[in-house]
Order: sequence, then structure tokens, then C-alpha cells
Amino acid sequence: MTKHMSDRRTFLKTAGLLTAGAALWHPSQLFAGSAGAAKKKSGSKKLELAWEDFQGIMKFTFTISGSSRTTTPIVITRLTWDGYEGYGEAAMPPYLGETQASCHEFYKKVVDNILPKFDNPFQIEDIMAAVDKITTNNTAAKASIDIALHDLVGNIFGQPWWKIWGFNPKDAPYTCYTIGYDASDDMVNTKIEEASWNKIIKVKLGMSEAEDKRMINLIRARDQRPIVIDANQGWKDKYYALDMIHWLAERGVEMIEQPMSKLMLDETAWITERSPLPVMADESCQRIYDIPRLKGAFHGINIKLMKCTGLWEARQMITMAEQNHMKLMVGCMTETSVAISAAAQISPKVIWADLDGNYLLGNDCFDGMKLVDGRITLEDKPGLGLTKKPGIISI
Amino acid sequence: MTKHMSDRRTFLKTAGLLTAGAALWHPSQLFAGSAGAAKKKSGSKKLELAWEDFQGIMKFTFTISGSSRTTTPIVITRLTWDGYEGYGEAAMPPYLGETQASCHEFYKKVVDNILPKFDNPFQIEDIMAAVDKITTNNTAAKASIDIALHDLVGNIFGQPWWKIWGFNPKDAPYTCYTIGYDASDDMVNTKIEEASWNKIIKVKLGMSEAEDKRMINLIRARDQRPIVIDANQGWKDKYYALDMIHWLAERGVEMIEQPMSKLMLDETAWITERSPLPVMADESCQRIYDIPRLKGAFHGINIKLMKCTGLWEARQMITMAEQNHMKLMVGCMTETSVAISAAAQISPKVIWADLDGNYLLGNDCFDGMKLVDGRITLEDKPGLGLTKKPGIISI
Repeated sequence: MTKHMSDRRTFLKTAGLLTAGAALWHPSQLFAGSAGAAKKKSGSKKLELAWEDFQGIMKFTFTISGSSRTTTPIVITRLTWDGYEGYGEAAMPPYLGETQASCHEFYKKVVDNILPKFDNPFQIEDIMAAVDKITTNNTAAKASIDIALHDLVGNIFGQPWWKIWGFNPKDAPYTCYTIGYDASDDMVNTKIEEASWNKIIKVKLGMSEAEDKRMINLIRARDQRPIVIDANQGWKDKYYALDMIHWLAERGVEMIEQPMSKLMLDETAWITERSPLPVMADESCQRIYDIPRLKGAFHGINIKLMKCTGLWEARQMITMAEQNHMKLMVGCMTETSVAISAAAQISPKVIWADLDGNYLLGNDCFDGMKLVDGRITLEDKPGLGLTKKPGIISI
Repeated sequence: MTKHMSDRRTFLKTAGLLTAGAALWHPSQLFAGSAGAAKKKSGSKKLELAWEDFQGIMKFTFTISGSSRTTTPIVITRLTWDGYEGYGEAAMPPYLGETQASCHEFYKKVVDNILPKFDNPFQIEDIMAAVDKITTNNTAAKASIDIALHDLVGNIFGQPWWKIWGFNPKDAPYTCYTIGYDASDDMVNTKIEEASWNKIIKVKLGMSEAEDKRMINLIRARDQRPIVIDANQGWKDKYYALDMIHWLAERGVEMIEQPMSKLMLDETAWITERSPLPVMADESCQRIYDIPRLKGAFHGINIKLMKCTGLWEARQMITMAEQNHMKLMVGCMTETSVAISAAAQISPKVIWADLDGNYLLGNDCFDGMKLVDGRITLEDKPGLGLTKKPGIISI
């Protein structure tokens, strides 16, 4: 793992503070029982960014669209201001095109061109508008800045974002948990049993009809929990897709994500009009400006922070979706508790949450949102409610 | 003036607290230099509502659509929770149909049916959804609950709402100030001179063509400040309206509000398509759900808290308008500094602000948002930044 600071001066300064043991103030200190529990406000009034590469180790081999992997590249970011700090994360499954190297390039531009223009972290809208203009893509890198800003500002306010936004924590849903495909029935049965803690099962379909139906039949042979389906753009024919949706509805499936290619919007609209189950947009919906053209083609959207550039836009996507009478879900990549705890802040507003990303990591570097009996719990802790685990990352 | 408390028990309790001099905590105490400056948290964890009728005395006789008045009915509300308090306001120009009596009826329902369901003020969305369902109308009464909730929660967070929302206070605009119609040229000239503190002049048109043009000519004879026009649905013919807009554009007018009746949306769209100036919806836009059908018919919308039920919905209207590429302005009724300071929180997001309502009152019962050289200033004070003036209202 390599470690980068925004500039050498910042590095020396921050390192100095860390050595002195007075350091930056983060709410995690409240729970660590350390002598640093008192709020420190000795820091610089400059917004400073640090980042560190992190290789997520996956508990289970992850297979999607024919490729498998056991690790996942992540960059953890940290913003500091006036003695406070906030953490962010860019989680980058390889098929989405971002890399740790592309993040580093991006962060250098943020440090050189954006942060010097702002004398505080509160103007999240203006900061993120400037960050968004750096490049067309890099949505995970952008999200990592946004998430760190929210953690930082929430820590300064002393409030969690679900509370700042006025959401009811009791509305937080159960998370889905994915039963991965396996050619062996025994392996699938083992996975079903391992997922017994969970209340809602997610299954990724889009292989052959026989294999898709085999997965559902194996689950239903021993388990009556609700199932949601992610077809991952896998179905090529609208008639076949609609038939499958009917077949699935008869087996207690309650939602279908992205049945067809994001390029097949008319066909998807045809399915949505006839579907007995809600049809949700995943690959079709990246940013807030996608929502108007998805109205009528899908019943709702899946919000993922790594695609929509973070919580600022996610919060506004909720308003846009609600005003367009669309349903909401929130999803994730394989992410640490940093990004999962960020996504959890908006979870009171969604019907389905797919926030099992940190559960899938063997080396999560933070504690944050906890699942209790499979349900998202939102605690009354400042910012994103994060506590850094000792000895895993350096920033 | 009559004074109502949510119930007798609350009355006695609050009255008792007031007598004891330790009372509820409001940030105004920080600025009053009183002994009560320390934060008091001795209050009940029940949400309690009090209200008091207030007759606003207008500095100038207000003439619109042929009727004149010198006073305006207002109800001030106060929500308390856990030793904190927040103020709200229902301002009800008679032509909009609400009265102090209809507010009282409404508040009784809030006290009996809504507040007991919530054990804290943070779930503003759920509370306002429940308040909104009490009746179809009563938008000013609803706004007074919403404004008090925002003041209360902002006071608890210790932050102003413009900051919680991440807006840049430097984006706050100059307010418009209305030069009222008068049949006497001398009177109009006096009004122009009295308004010399202001940077943007507003003129309400919609009388005869001769009178409308006379008003503009009188102003332009001695004054080159930008002018915005509120036609108040006054023009009956789209060709005439478009001709007038061209005539006005040639005289440095920069925006037209509501040229035709809200029932004439197609005609308005015809004007908007051809207008050299932005055409904004006022009477046509009450609530967030009006926005989609106004797209294309207007260039933007005027948000007024008394019509849209308050800041919760106003904040979401901003997102909806921006995503529909519509321009924004914020307006007001004749209001005290309570509602004006609430509206000022969203002002960094608008091009035009018409927040001269408290300036027009001779007996404003609060200090709040200040105009500096005609410009809205947003201070870093908790909640809505309110300080109750002594001796005017009792709650």
C-alpha cells in the first residue's frame, strides 16, 4: 500500500500532529476511550486531502459476467479542516473503468485546483460542482471526496446525516444479501445456509434459462424468504424476460433489477408496462440527470454512491425520483464500512437496500453501520458514524 | 391580541418557566447579554406548540387588485422540545383565504393528532407529511409549523439552515423592493426617492396600458436601476402581453412575473417561447407538484413559503426546478422577520429575491435577516437567526 498526502507540507504537518498525540478530532475517539476524546480545534483552516490505496480482500470469490476476483481496489480519502476530519472511499470494481492510479490523478487536481478555492467544507454543493467539472467520468473518485466532505461536516455539526436530512431511522430497511451462482447444488445449498442471518435474498440471473431456474428452485426448495432479482442486463428478448418475470413472481420474487441492456430502453418500457413485479434501473441510472428519461421505462432506480458521485447528488436523486413517482433502492460495490455507512444514511428513503458490501470484505478498515438481524441500523453518531479500526490504514 | 397554548397544562408549565426566568433556550439569549445565555436543557421531551395572533401594521397602504389595507393578519407559532424553542409564522393576506381563526382550528388538530405521534422534532419530513394531510389547503398554517420546526432543529444543531444545506452565503442576492402604484406623479416620485437604498426595483403592472407605461416612464425618467415586473395575472391577451414585454425590455426591465392568468397556461407558454425576458410563475406555482406541468410554460418559478407549506418543500422545489432547467426566485407576503429569515435561508439558490416583507411592517416582532445596502445577509447564527424583540408578543 502506498500513502499519498496532498503535498509535502501537509504531510509533515499532519505527521507532526499525529506524533504529538493531539491529532485531529474524530468522533471515533469518543468511543475509543482515549485521552484524545475532547474536541481538538487546533488544526488548520485549510481544507486538506490525504489518500491511501487499500486492497479489499473478499471473503468469497466474486463472479459477475464471466469474470472472477478475490480482491477489489479501493482508495480511502481523508479531508481535514480546523482540527476535524472526515473519511471517504472510492471503490472500483475493475469493469467500471476507474483505478487507484486514475484516482491519484484526480485527487491531485482536486488539491491543486479545487480545495484552494474554498475556505471551509460547508459549501458542499459548490465544492462538488467544481469537483464534478474536473472530468466527465471518475464518479468513484468524486464520490470519495463527497463522502469525506459529508463525514467532515457531519462531525463538525455533531450530527449524523440521516438526522440532518430529517429522515426517520426506523424506516431503514433490511439489506438484501446475494446468494452467488454455483454450478454445484451442494455449494448453493451451503450458501443459502450461510445466509440464514439475512431476511431478503438477492439472486443475480442472466445465465441460461435452465441455470437461472435451477438457482431459484434450489432456494425455494428450502427457503421462503423474499427474493429480489438482479438480471444485470442479462436478458436479450423482451418476451422471454416478461415470461421469466411471471415465472419468478409465482415463486415469491418481489422485484427485478435491470432486466435488459441499458441500450434497450423501449423494450424495458414494454416489460415494465406489463410486469407483475417492480422493475428497477441499475446500469440505466448513473446520475440524477438520467431520471427523467427513465420515467415510464422503469418503476424506480437503484442509487449507488460510486456511480452518482456521492451523497449530495444521491439526496437530490431521492427528491427527483419521488416527484416522478418512482420507487427507490440503494446499492453498493464491494466497499468498506466508509462508503456503506454513507449509503446507509439515505436508506430510510428506499424500499430495498443492497448494502452487504462491507460484510463481504475480510479486511474492513472501519467500523460503521451495523446490520442487526439483517437490518440496517442508524445510530445517533456524528457524520457517517465511523470508527477507524487500528492498524489497517495509515491515514 | 389573543394568546393560545396547545393545552392548559402546557400553558401553566410554560408560564411557570417564564416566571422562573430560566425558561427555554433560544440563541437570541446569546445576543441579549442576559443571564440566560447558557444552554438550558431542562424542558420536556414532548413537542409542544403555542401560538399567538399578531396584527402586522403596514408602513404603507398596500394596494393590489383594487383593494387596499393598512394591517395584515399573522399568527406567530412556537414549538418547544427538550428546553429548545423555534418560532414560525403564518402570514395571511386576506385574498388567499386563510384567517387567524382557520389557523387556530388547524393548530388544534396538529396538537391533538400529529405532535403526540413524534417524540422529537428531527423527522421534519414525516412530521410535515402528517401536517400536510390534515387538510387540502391551509398552506400558511402548515408553513408556520414547518418554519418553527426548522428554527427549533437548527437551534438544536447550533447551525443556520443555509449552512446545513451547504449553500454559499455569498450567493445571497439583493432583494427587490416594490414601488407601489399611485395616481399622482409626485407620489410616485417620492416613492422612488424613498426606495433609494434598494438596488432592484419591482413594479406591479396590470392596470391600463397608459397607467402601466406611466409608472415605468416615471421611474426611468430619474432612475436606471434594474426593474422586475409582477404582472399579477393582469394581462388578458397574449399579443398585448408580448408587445408590453418587448416595450419593457427596451427600458431595462429584466424579468416578468406571471403575465397572464394561471388558467391560461397555453397562452403563457406561447409568450415564454417568444419573450426576450425570463417569464416566472407566481400564482401558477404553489407546490412542488406544480413544477413539471410548468416546464416549458415558464422560464422559472417564484417560491413562497406561505404557499408551498414551508422550507422542507421549498428545499425540494429547488432541486426539482434546477433539474428541470428552470430559474428560481423567492418571494414573500407582508411578513415579520420570522418568515422572511426563513425564506432568506434558500436565497443563495435564487436569481431574484423579493424579501422586503418585514421592511414593510411598522411593528416587526423579531430581528432576523438584515438587508445591507439592499442585499440579503446570511449570518452564522443557529436556526433562522431570530431574536425576539421585547414587549411585542407574549410567546
